[in-house]
Parts: sequence; C-alpha cells; structure tokens
Amino acid sequence: MSSSQATGIKIAYIGGGSRYWAHELMSDLALCPEIKGHLALYDINLDAALTNVKIAQDIFSRPESKTKFTVSAEKKAEGALKGADFVVCSIEPGPTEMRYSDLEIPAKYGIVQPVGDSSGPGGIMRALRSVPVKMDYARLVMKHCPNAWVINYTNPMTLCTSAFYAAEPKIKAFGCCHEVFGTQRFLAHKLKEWGKGDNIDRRDIALDISGVNHFTFASEAKWKGFDILNKLSEWVKDDAIFSDRTKTSLQRKKKGEWFEADAMVALDFLRRFGALGAAGDRHLVEFVPWYLRSEKELHRWGVLCTPYSWRLERSRQKSSTTKYSKSILNPSGEEGVTQILALLGKARLDTNVNLPNRGQIANLPIGAIVETNAQFRHDSIIPIVAKPLPPGLSEAVRRIVSVQRMTLDAASTRSKNLAFEAILSDPLVCISTDKAWKMFNEMLSHTKKCLPGWKI
Amino acid sequence: MSSSQATGIKIAYIGGGSRYWAHELMSDLALCPEIKGHLALYDINLDAALTNVKIAQDIFSRPESKTKFTVSAEKKAEGALKGADFVVCSIEPGPTEMRYSDLEIPAKYGIVQPVGDSSGPGGIMRALRSVPVKMDYARLVMKHCPNAWVINYTNPMTLCTSAFYAAEPKIKAFGCCHEVFGTQRFLAHKLKEWGKGDNIDRRDIALDISGVNHFTFASEAKWKGFDILNKLSEWVKDDAIFSDRTKTSLQRKKKGEWFEADAMVALDFLRRFGALGAAGDRHLVEFVPWYLRSEKELHRWGVLCTPYSWRLERSRQKSSTTKYSKSILNPSGEEGVTQILALLGKARLDTNVNLPNRGQIANLPIGAIVETNAQFRHDSIIPIVAKPLPPGLSEAVRRIVSVQRMTLDAASTRSKNLAFEAILSDPLVCISTDKAWKMFNEMLSHTKKCLPGWKI
Amino acid sequence: MSSSQATGIKIAYIGGGSRYWAHELMSDLALCPEIKGHLALYDINLDAALTNVKIAQDIFSRPESKTKFTVSAEKKAEGALKGADFVVCSIEPGPTEMRYSDLEIPAKYGIVQPVGDSSGPGGIMRALRSVPVKMDYARLVMKHCPNAWVINYTNPMTLCTSAFYAAEPKIKAFGCCHEVFGTQRFLAHKLKEWGKGDNIDRRDIALDISGVNHFTFASEAKWKGFDILNKLSEWVKDDAIFSDRTKTSLQRKKKGEWFEADAMVALDFLRRFGALGAAGDRHLVEFVPWYLRSEKELHRWGVLCTPYSWRLERSRQKSSTTKYSKSILNPSGEEGVTQILALLGKARLDTNVNLPNRGQIANLPIGAIVETNAQFRHDSIIPIVAKPLPPGLSEAVRRIVSVQRMTLDAASTRSKNLAFEAILSDPLVCISTDKAWKMFNEMLSHTKKCLPGWKI
Amino acid sequence: MSSSQATGIKIAYIGGGSRYWAHELMSDLALCPEIKGHLALYDINLDAALTNVKIAQDIFSRPESKTKFTVSAEKKAEGALKGADFVVCSIEPGPTEMRYSDLEIPAKYGIVQPVGDSSGPGGIMRALRSVPVKMDYARLVMKHCPNAWVINYTNPMTLCTSAFYAAEPKIKAFGCCHEVFGTQRFLAHKLKEWGKGDNIDRRDIALDISGVNHFTFASEAKWKGFDILNKLSEWVKDDAIFSDRTKTSLQRKKKGEWFEADAMVALDFLRRFGALGAAGDRHLVEFVPWYLRSEKELHRWGVLCTPYSWRLERSRQKSSTTKYSKSILNPSGEEGVTQILALLGKARLDTNVNLPNRGQIANLPIGAIVETNAQFRHDSIIPIVAKPLPPGLSEAVRRIVSVQRMTLDAASTRSKNLAFEAILSDPLVCISTDKAWKMFNEMLSHTKKCLPGWKI
Repeated sequence: MSSSQATGIKIAYIGGGSRYWAHELMSDLALCPEIKGHLALYDINLDAALTNVKIAQDIFSRPESKTKFTVSAEKKAEGALKGADFVVCSIEPGPTEMRYSDLEIPAKYGIVQPVGDSSGPGGIMRALRSVPVKMDYARLVMKHCPNAWVINYTNPMTLCTSAFYAAEPKIKAFGCCHEVFGTQRFLAHKLKEWGKGDNIDRRDIALDISGVNHFTFASEAKWKGFDILNKLSEWVKDDAIFSDRTKTSLQRKKKGEWFEADAMVALDFLRRFGALGAAGDRHLVEFVPWYLRSEKELHRWGVLCTPYSWRLERSRQKSSTTKYSKSILNPSGEEGVTQILALLGKARLDTNVNLPNRGQIANLPIGAIVETNAQFRHDSIIPIVAKPLPPGLSEAVRRIVSVQRMTLDAASTRSKNLAFEAILSDPLVCISTDKAWKMFNEMLSHTKKCLPGWKI
Repeated sequence: MSSSQATGIKIAYIGGGSRYWAHELMSDLALCPEIKGHLALYDINLDAALTNVKIAQDIFSRPESKTKFTVSAEKKAEGALKGADFVVCSIEPGPTEMRYSDLEIPAKYGIVQPVGDSSGPGGIMRALRSVPVKMDYARLVMKHCPNAWVINYTNPMTLCTSAFYAAEPKIKAFGCCHEVFGTQRFLAHKLKEWGKGDNIDRRDIALDISGVNHFTFASEAKWKGFDILNKLSEWVKDDAIFSDRTKTSLQRKKKGEWFEADAMVALDFLRRFGALGAAGDRHLVEFVPWYLRSEKELHRWGVLCTPYSWRLERSRQKSSTTKYSKSILNPSGEEGVTQILALLGKARLDTNVNLPNRGQIANLPIGAIVETNAQFRHDSIIPIVAKPLPPGLSEAVRRIVSVQRMTLDAASTRSKNLAFEAILSDPLVCISTDKAWKMFNEMLSHTKKCLPGWKI
Repeated sequence: MSSSQATGIKIAYIGGGSRYWAHELMSDLALCPEIKGHLALYDINLDAALTNVKIAQDIFSRPESKTKFTVSAEKKAEGALKGADFVVCSIEPGPTEMRYSDLEIPAKYGIVQPVGDSSGPGGIMRALRSVPVKMDYARLVMKHCPNAWVINYTNPMTLCTSAFYAAEPKIKAFGCCHEVFGTQRFLAHKLKEWGKGDNIDRRDIALDISGVNHFTFASEAKWKGFDILNKLSEWVKDDAIFSDRTKTSLQRKKKGEWFEADAMVALDFLRRFGALGAAGDRHLVEFVPWYLRSEKELHRWGVLCTPYSWRLERSRQKSSTTKYSKSILNPSGEEGVTQILALLGKARLDTNVNLPNRGQIANLPIGAIVETNAQFRHDSIIPIVAKPLPPGLSEAVRRIVSVQRMTLDAASTRSKNLAFEAILSDPLVCISTDKAWKMFNEMLSHTKKCLPGWKI
Repeated sequence: MSSSQATGIKIAYIGGGSRYWAHELMSDLALCPEIKGHLALYDINLDAALTNVKIAQDIFSRPESKTKFTVSAEKKAEGALKGADFVVCSIEPGPTEMRYSDLEIPAKYGIVQPVGDSSGPGGIMRALRSVPVKMDYARLVMKHCPNAWVINYTNPMTLCTSAFYAAEPKIKAFGCCHEVFGTQRFLAHKLKEWGKGDNIDRRDIALDISGVNHFTFASEAKWKGFDILNKLSEWVKDDAIFSDRTKTSLQRKKKGEWFEADAMVALDFLRRFGALGAAGDRHLVEFVPWYLRSEKELHRWGVLCTPYSWRLERSRQKSSTTKYSKSILNPSGEEGVTQILALLGKARLDTNVNLPNRGQIANLPIGAIVETNAQFRHDSIIPIVAKPLPPGLSEAVRRIVSVQRMTLDAASTRSKNLAFEAILSDPLVCISTDKAWKMFNEMLSHTKKCLPGWKI
C-alpha cells in the first residue's frame, strides 16, 4: 500500500439524485483523508442531483470533513462517466408504482413476498425491467471510462451485475451488499451472550460466505479461533428456539416494524442443512418454497411482508423531503468507500462481494454472478474459494443461479416464453401452470411501459 | 448379426415368483426361435417360483412355442446367478403395506401422489428401502456372473439402476421401461386423426428422448420425415384442448379407471416449454410442483390418484390368484427379449434405455442414470446423444437428478440428515420445514423394518 | 423413410471447378435414382466450373445414369447458394505454392510432415489461411440458404468445420472424411487372413470411433459379433510385426508411392495404448512427437513424406488436364451422396462424421469439432456417444483439440501471438522457442498474401 | 488471532534424521515464542534421528532461543504420529543411487534433465517409487492423528501431495515449496535496478500464482501498486536480454555452480506467452519440450544439468558429516513455522501452497494438486482464485496435470502399461515409442527394488 494521498479521483454516481445512498457515500468520502477529487452526479431527475450538489457542498465544508471533493450534477450520463475512476450505480428501473406488478399481482395468486426484489415472480419481473437499462450503462462505461470500477448497489443485485457483464464481458463491475454485516452483528451478539466479550467488532468475525446475493450461507464462522458455527449447531438442536412467532409478528405488524426479524430462518437452515443463512430472513425465505406458503406461515417464523402501500407512501415521502439532516458526519457502516480505497492501493480489504464465478464456487457455472469473500487489492478483486455448501443448500443455490440465467437471457432477448420458463422454474411458484400463465400476463401487462421492445 | 441359433443361454430371474413380468418374459422367450437355454427363477417366495416353473413347462410345451427353455426354481440367488448371461431383476423392497408410508402419510401433509414410486416423498422413501437391496445384488452379480447383462424392471427405476453402479461400477446394468411406448402410441393415434394412416407402428415414430425415467421428454418426433412435434406445437396453441377435465376424472374415479389419462400434462409441457412429455401424465406430474397442489388440481388435468387401499387389495389378489391364463401365446409388447436378442448379436435395436450418463445428456453429471435412446448391439449398448432440452425442462430434469443423487447417498450411507435434505429438495415438497420434518419422521417410523441399519 | 423420389433438390458446389471431388459427386448422383434436381457449381476459376458443366452433361446423359440433374456454373457464390438444400464445400485457401510455407520451411527447422494439412506447423498455417474464408462462406450460407446442410470436404477438416460454427453457430455443417474406410478395409483384410471370409464388406465392420479428424481411434471393432480388436491386440504382441521398414520405405520412395503404408503406426497405438489408430499412418504420425523426429525415423515405420515438389507438379497437371475419363460410371466409394439421401429421409446411415461435440466425447469441450459415429436420419445427424479412449490417447486427442482452439481463435482474431502459442503447443514442435519463432515468421512472411488483415 | 502462547503442540517429523530440513525447522521453532511443545523425530535411520535429538537439545538451550521444545527420536512412525498436531514429511523413496534410473538412463536416450524430480521420465520414475510410501503414511496419519495438518516437503511435490489425498481424501495435507520466493527476490532485484528501492522485502511483492509445483506462473506482479509485470513485459521485448549464455554456462559448469541461472527461461515464458515463470529455470525447462533438446541447448539458456555423480557424492557427504554448525540461530527464510503459527491462529499468512484444486484454477480438474496463493488462517487454508493463464500456458499446465494423473494411477495400481502411457505423454519424451519402451524398461529394471509389488 502506498501512503500518500490519491488525488484527482473521479467518481461518477449514476442515480446521484437519490437521498439515501448518495448522502452516505458523500459522508464517508468526507471522512476519508486518503483521497481527493471530483464527484459527478447523474440522475434522470436533474433537480434531485442539483439538490445533492448543495448538500455535498455543505458536507465537504464541515469542520469534521477530512478531504475535499468537488461535486457536479451532470445533464447527461456521459458527462458523469467521462474519465471516471469509479462508477457508483444506484438506480431504480421505473417508478415505485411498478412494484405493484411485482408484489400485489402475485399475492392475488397466493404468492406473497416480503421483499420481492431478488427472486420469485417479483424479483424476476423487476429484473426484466432492470437488465436492459444496466446493459446500456455497461456500454456507456466501456465507451467513456473502460478502466473504471463499477460498483452496483441496485437490486436485483445478481441480475444487475450479470447485465453489466452480459453486455460488456471486460467491464470491471461488482455488486456490493451489506446483508452479510447483519449476520456478523447477530453473531457478535451471540458471542456476547456466551460471555465472549461485549463489544466484538463484526469485522473480526470471519465467515466463509457462499451463495448468491440475499441467499448466502456461512459454512464456517470463527472469531479469534473460536468456532462459532460449531457452538451454534449445538444450540439449534433446542426446538424451543424455533417456537411459533406469530404473536410477535402481529405486534410488529401493528407497529409497522417491517424489517424486524429474529434470524429464525437463518438458523433453521443451519439446523436442517448445516450452514447458517447469511442474509436477513426476509430475503432468505424468498429463495425456497418452505416458508412462504402464506403470510400466516411467514408470521410463524417472525417475518413480515412489507406492504406495497407502505412502499409507495415511503417513496412519495422520499421524493418530497430529504433524509439528510445537519447532524455531525458519521461513518455509514457501508463499505463502499473502503472498497474504493483498497482498489486505489490505500488499504487492504477482505470482504464479501458479488462477482462472476471464476472458480470460487466450483459447482456453479463459470461466469454466473455469485457472492463469496474476496480480496480487494490495488486495482484488483480476487475471489477466495468458498468451502462447498452441504448438498441440499448447494442445490438450492444452483437452482436460483439457473432461474437467474433464464431471466437474464429472457430480459436481454425480450423473450416472453423464456421469461415464463424462468417464472415456472422459480422455487416460489408452486401454483398450476395455468394460473401462473395468467398471473404472468397480468404482471407483464401492468409493467409494460417499463418493458420497451417487448411483444406482450 | 449372425444368423444361427444361440444356445445355452442362461437367464436368471430375480423376483421370479412374480405373476405379471415373469409370464410376459416366458411367453416372449417362447416366441423367439433365435435363442435356447435355461431360465433360473429365484424369489424370496420359493413357492411362487415353483408355481412359475409349472407355468413355464406349460408355455414351452405349447405348439406355438418356437424354442425350448428349461426352467428351474432356485433356493438361493447364487444358484440362479451362477454363470448367467442375463439377469432380470424385478423385486419389491418389502410388502405393499410399506407403501402406506409412501402415499398415505404425505397425503396427510397435503402431498398427494398418483404413483409415488419414482419421486416425491413417496419415491424417495421407496428408494431408501430399495437401494441397499440392489447394491447387495450388484455384488452377487459381480461375484457369480460378472459378464452378465442386468436388466432392471423395478421402480424407482433410476435409483435402482444407480444402486447397481454405486456398488459395482463395472456392472453391465440397464433399466428398461415401456413408458415411452405409450407416447409413441399416442402420437400414432394423432397421426391417424391427421389422416396420415390407420395402422402406424409405434416403432416407426422416432422420438429424441431425454430425461430421467418417468420424467422424459421428446424434443423431436418424426414419422417418415413428417415432423410430428411441429404440427403438435401448432395444435396445442388452442386453449380448448386444455379445458377442465374434472368431470371426466370424477367419472373415471367412480369406475376405478386409475390409469386413464389424456396426455394433457404431456402436452402442457409442449405448450409451456417446447418439448413433449414422454411418459404417462400420472408420472409426469410427480416431478414438478405445478399439477399436484391438491387432488382437485390433479383432476383438472384428467389425472387420478391410485388409492393405497386399491393397491393393497390388488397385491393381495395377486398373491392368491394368478394372472396367467391358458390363452394362446402372444407377444407382450415389452422389449426385454428383443434387447436380449440384440445383445446376443441376433438383432439390431435402437430404443430408449436407462444408463449411466457418459455424455448422452451433456449438461447432466457423468454417471447419473439417465434415459435416452441407445443402440443395442452385440454385447454393447451405446447411448445416442440427446438433443438439448429447452432451458426450463433441462433445469427441471437437473433438479431431479440432484435429488436422486442425495437419495442414493443417503440410502447407501444410511444418513437421516441427507435423506431429509433430499426430501426438502424434492419439487413436490412445498410445505414448511417443520411439517416436512414431522412427515419424514412418521414415514421413517412406519417403514423402519425395511430400513435395517438406520438410526431412526 | 419415404419411398417416392425426392425432386427439386438443389446442391451447391463451392469449389465446383475441382477435378476430382466434383466428378466423383456427379457420378454418384447419376447412379442414385432416389433424387433429382439441380447442381450449381461455383469456383473462383469460372472456366473450370464451365468445363465441369460439360462433363456433367455427359455424365447425366449416359445410359447407366439413373436420374437427371441439371447443372450450372455460377459467376457468384450467392447464385449457387440461393435456395440450396445442400452445400458441398471443397476449396483450397490459396494456390499450392502456399504449401511451401507449410512444408518446406518447417523442414528446414527439422520438422518434417508427410501431409501437413491437419496439424503441426503446416496444418496450423494452412488453417490460418482457411478459417477466414470458411467463416465468410458460413455467413453467405446463413443469408442465402440457412436450412441447407453444409458438407465440408476440405482440410484442415476440423478447423474448416470449426470455422463454419465460429461464424454461424446455427449452421448445419459437418465434415466428411473417408479415412476411417481405410481402417475398415484393413480389418476386412485381416479377417480374410484369419479365415473369416473373402469378401467382407467394410460397412459390416463396426468401429467405435473417437478423436479428431485424421487422429481417430477405434476403441472397439466388431464383425458380426466377432471381436476383432481383441484378436488384434493379441497379435500385436509379436514384435516382429513392428520390424524396421526402412528398406520398404526407400523402395516406395524410389517408385513415388507416396501414399503407401502398412498400418504399423495404427497398430503401434493399439500395442502401446490399447486402441487402434483409425486413419492412415501418414496422418497419425503428425499428431504426436514420437514418429517424426526425422525422415529416417518415419521410414522405419514405413511412412514417406510426400515431397512438396511432387505436390506442386501434380497441382499443375490437374489444372491443365482432367482426371475425368469416359469409362462407365462407377460408385466412387465415397459416402457424400448416401449422406444426402439419408438427410432427405431416403436411407438410414450410421457412419463417422465431424461435428461439434454435444457430449459424444464427454471429456472434450462442448462445441469442439470431433469425429465419432453418428446416425444420419431425416434432416438430422445425431452423434453416438463414443467409448472413452485409454488415458494416454484421450490426453493426446485433448491436446490437439486445445491447439486447434488456439488456432481457430488466432485465425479469427488475426492474432500473431496466439498463433505462435498454438505453434509452440503443437506436439510436433520440439524445437527451441527461438528457432520456432524464426520459423514461424518465415512461414508467415511467405504466405502473407493469403493472410489479409494480418500485421506480420 | 489470539495472543497467548500455544502450548502442548506436538510436531511429528517423518524423515527426522535429515540434516538440512530438520535443522532449519528446529532453528525456526526456537526463534518463535508463540508456541511450545514437543517435536518427535522418526527416521528409518534411527541413529540420524538420535543425532538430531542432540542437536535439538543444543538449539533449544541456546540463549537466543525464545521457546522450549522437547525432542525425541521414535523407533516407530506411530510413536511420532500419535496425537500430533502437525506432521512434517520429508523423506526420500530409496537411496540416491536410485536416481541413476531417473537421470542417467534417459540421458542415454537423449533426454537430459537438470533436476529430474518433478516431471520427465526422471520425475515419473521417482513418483512411481514415492507414491505408495506416501499413501502408507496417509493411512497412518488418519489412524493416529486424523486432525493433524500434514506438511509435505518432498519431491515430486505434486505427486507426493496427491498420494496423501488418493489414500485418504479427508487428510489435511499440503505441499510447501520455496521456489516462488526466488521469483520474488528476482523481482525485488529488478525493482532495485529500476530505482524503486534498495531493500525491498520479497513478501511485499504480490504475485498471482498459478500452476503446478515447479511449473508455476505469475500472471500478475505488483509492488505497492506498481505493476511490475507491465514493466517487465516491455523490457523483455529487447532480444539482447536473451542472447546466448553458452559461455557463462560453461564457466559455471567448470566451477560446479549447478544451481545458478539467470531467469532467462522464466522471462522467455513472459515474452512468448505473457506470464512470468515463477520457479527456477532448472525446473521450468523440464515441463516443456523446447529448452531441453540437448545439454547444449540448455547451456544456451544459462542452465546446467546437475550431474548424477555430484548428487551421489553429496549424498554420501551428507550422511557422514553434518551441515549443522554452532553459529548463532538465524531464521531460515522458509515459511514452515509461519504456516504452523497461522494454522494455530497466531498469525495471518497469505502465501503460495500446493493443495487439491477446489476451483482455484477453474479449468483444471477438481482434486488435482495445484499451486496457487492461499490464506492460512486458524485451522484452515483457503485457496485464492488464480487469474486465468494465457491459453498456451494454461494448456501446458493442463498437460502436466494429466501426466501426473496417469502417474498417480499407475503408481497406486502398479500398472506398467499406464506408467508407460504417462512416460509417452510427458512433454520431454519426443523420442520414438520403441526407444521410449526400451528406456522405460531399463529404468524399471534398475529401480525395481524400490517398486515392491510390480511385475516388471
């Protein structure tokens, strides 16, 4: 690692009008003395980007800010991308109203999804809208900044990252997700319960991560030589841990605590298969047919469905107000800026990341986007070979990879037939082919303005 | 092909006390002038075998019999196997009462299966009982007649054939099933409807077969250059073909016509995925989660569940009476004897067969037992490379292969955990892990006397 | 098979000015009553094509001719291809003088090759010239007759066929070579020696063929149930069979019998590895480093190097005179027309053919062009799974496949570096990297007018 | 990492009578305050082990020693292994006289090898002797200390490590080789030449390592963000670097400087293929057919053949005298003890290591022993995915893996035929099959007392 400050770093932010992620990134940058440069925001909503420019000026002029980035809002994506060293990509394919297709229509057919952004009919439909957009950006990147690292923050994480590579195999893109951090925090909490220490840093808990985004597993978990998974495997033999959570769930529902859960599903995977779920339960349930037979079943595991109505409401609030408040700058807990530092040779980072499979998960196809640990080093990200998952989980992940492949191909060729093969192949789709066909057509019909070029 | 008669051929029949298959085989042998030799019957029910010896004597002394086989009933399997050229294997793992575990217990948990012998909780449980038995026979074969061809007739076909190879990789075993003939007959019937001819021989309809037993697909179907699948693909666009069959189903149920169906599921695969199901609908529905949500849903597709009570009744009748009647000998329509002839170099036969994958289905693991076409030639069976299936079906087959692998490993290592991973991974198991665990334990408990060596 | 005559069949012949192949094809067509239609000849040498038109008119008007084809010479390839049902492709990349690069330059560096058209520095260089030409034709075919079957007759067989698929993955091309027939004839001769019969038809000898063109092996050889390979394997244990053939070779050289050989190398493969070489020795020696250390070593095995001077002479004779003589029409012994008949549903043919690997050789990459047996049926060619080769031969074939892959990529991207990696990786190149580099540059320099677009 | 001292660590040293490696290990242990325990030496020469016990007592009682290990010499391997945490394996298969077979006999047939311990006829023959011995030790390890880490130091490194896994797939064995350190030192030297710094630590030079032991390549080389390989690739374009070294070689020969070389071959790989050889030139030349046509050719590249006579002489000296001198303890530069520390959770180490392929080199077979970087962590070694090599090198490595597989199978089944297939498949064997067969038989005959159970 070199110790001098890296200057002249250009970061392009596609979706730079966003409230949440953009502010987090700007704060983290401001707290990072090792680099200096320019942040170019691009958003289809130029006003939102301009508002963020003002916020940025405030952030970088704070006394606690340790570096200086100039910030601009660009009218065209090209302006932001030209000569960029890093491209942050954080964009939605269409307005939140489109999520009605993803969530409310399947629910009518008995397929409820707490999130619906990565898998299931909801995730697939969202991917059909997203993939072509990402493919276009991939081409722009290779035209305007072919050496840039592209950091994708958008869901469906796997398919968005796949789309970049489908369009431009030589792009340097990766997908970044904080979901595993939650598992580390959960384990830090268990270590505390077990009397191992009060303030254990999540980063000291080494997980061997394997899977696809939001459906990842820890096949090993250690803290300073202590085998956490071993202890946890003993612990989960107690059936009491898995007692019915319906009551808790209903209370949470009343309070609107949509994102609360108790890792019961993550632990159930450990109990039944031998590896710990390493994403939130809300996500994990969406990749297998066992927990989502009904909202009632979901409640039994302590998980809620975030209502579409709430999502819509929140999105309307977000566009009118701003999350940004003038409190003191704090690290966001996200790793984006640390990753940038590591890629600039200013830090060494070993963390989980979404990348094309080059062998890190040996039984999955080469090129499929998978999530494992990797070494972030100077201008390179080198995956670490994941420990093989137990057979049942290995197969469960393989199925998702296969559905995602069909979805990618359907999206990029605009094939309705293949998209329907993907829908039927999704583990959540346990309804008759007739009903599924009807559901699929309703979904397409509702979301069609975001599916240009499709014959629907 | 050589034209002289092959003499001194020894055929061992394991399960030689059976009424149905043994009689068919003996009749077919009697009608086959090309070979001559000895048939050695072995059955755990020696009396049943002795009864068949008498029947055999009658058969081979009929005027229409064209050859002579001596027939014996052996007290030990070794006696039958010693020096055999062919071993026919047709045995049940345990009494029909065991099928209560396979069918009635899952049904209580909402998992109904029309057959339950190949996949689903029923098929898996049946495999757990069968695999060790077949592995023992494999070892006996390699000891007493290592050069013999072993023809397996028992279900679960795939896992029984797998068991032979798992125990003895050099064994020359294959699985023989007539299910595809039904598809050929169905297509002959369609050809007649289309005015192509009245008495089209099913053997003139060339199907490109790919899949695993009972879950096979025809990705091509031709008759003298006429592209049947093409025409059929147009035809299935008419939704009227797929109208609700509940009324028909209920009538069939009343009459006890358990095995009737209309190929609606086979055709639905063609409509939704682009390849024709090439097994009976009763089987096809058991490998995917779409048609079996309930008995009602099944009826909608014209398929019935054979009741356990009927199965029990029939098995009791079979043991007390005999199907064999003194009518004139007729070819059974089965291919067993033709296969034997071809392997002796007395005929050339291209037909479908269950064999270890050597490349015939390129995206499936080498060694998995798959069903494709093959050339039966002198002392060799050479698989023909199958046309790749459409992505959705290729994936559906791949899933079954994976569940079967877990089942095989669970059965051969007596691993309860792995068996449960197989159960959860089966496409029919769309119930919660808790309920599945309870169901699985009930099944094991009921069938445990046929699971020697298991810790249940 | 349908029995009526197929009419209106259009066959395009690219390279239709050739003396040898075109005449054979026309004679064979004339003797084939099952089909009727038009033969369109295209050649960069239009005069040669016009001469062939005249010869054709003679052939088809002979009394022994059993059908009628109209024949035309086309000024543009497009004219020949438009609407064709079959495309025969038989063209040289550049004049015979180019072969100086392939043969004489490597010889200076100690690398002698009897043929130099498939492998070794000669074969690679020839492929670099051929691949782009074939890729262009592939695009024309897909434009003008996308449903046509393309029969490639040109060497390097594997790389020419590969080039078709590299440019147009959906093309229906295959490579056709008679080399295996020679092996069958050799075995018929052995059968005669062993008293098995005097006029054994080569087609009754069933070989299990595996490899790449000119480097194929028979891992099984049977004649009416008689295991030829078994007997042959015993026979080759006699070292006397492999005694020094230098004297014979020198006599042959004197007489100019360049194509004579005694299958010693084919048999040496059987002796050393357990499978019989199934191509002429002149070809077999060119894929491994053992027989070609010098012309002297080659003579020890009874094989000659065809001199470049003789090749040049012959090519000059061929352009001025014509092989075609007015003798009675006889079947050529080639299978091209039988293949056409089978693809039209007028015959069934199982023979060896060069096709993309779809699993027929399981341990080779999917898509690599390999030679195995296949079933020619109505509008389809279905490969038969080859028996695995012994480890040493399997590896030897895999090496060639790998060199051919590099050559294909080098040719299609015009990459000098990659072409040199291919050269160094060729088993015949056992000289220092420095000398190889020098040789390679000389070869490129001499042949550069046939390498448009290359930076040399 | 935990910070307390690890006590009670038992290290078994198989081959513990060795002079060189045992002394290095003991010195390194003595300098390592983090661990404490017992070192159990086993050697077929008990006296040598007893001598080492005395030396050990001296070492651990020195004032500069920072820890205390008790040391014993065991009469049986079992005594050393029982309860061991680590097993160091450093044994020769047979006396140095056996190397006559490996080196002198092939030389008579024109195959000269500078080292002959990893590949070529010499390496294969050495492997045939070594594999069964290692397999026996693997079984002992799994019986007496199944949780121990086994560190193999013996050549042929790849095949010895393979043998452990062939006998016991669950063993925790890895192969440890310092060859890559030399490449790092060479690059540190180049960095100095380029003015980047005078005392660059080899461990700060990050290489992306890929290959098999002694035939490894760096496809990336960086020092604090500086791209060494980039610069080096430019540099090697100067042909002067590769001028003839015959004169230097002859001078070295005269002085007996057998191990000197100039990385010309390592650099030639960079020049011709695009990745830097990451082992000594003496090793690199033995895996390809280009540099070893003769001793003269070898000299041209600055490499010498270590004479068999010198090897014999040295081995005799070693047995009579001892290398160990009473100078102050110094770190050996080897990584064995650091690896032990890391596996105990006392350090973090990323280094190159020989392990079964789990995906770290995606195009090589799973399970083949390969050399790449890996993370040494608490009780685990996790491979890092290697960057794909350029096609030519990837293929060259693939060939070696294949030859090694044949050798392993030949050694473990004592198959002379398969061993000869391995010999013929070795890239150094460019002689006729007849001569190779004669050579092979001479080699076998000479070394047969170390090939128990073989039919020779």
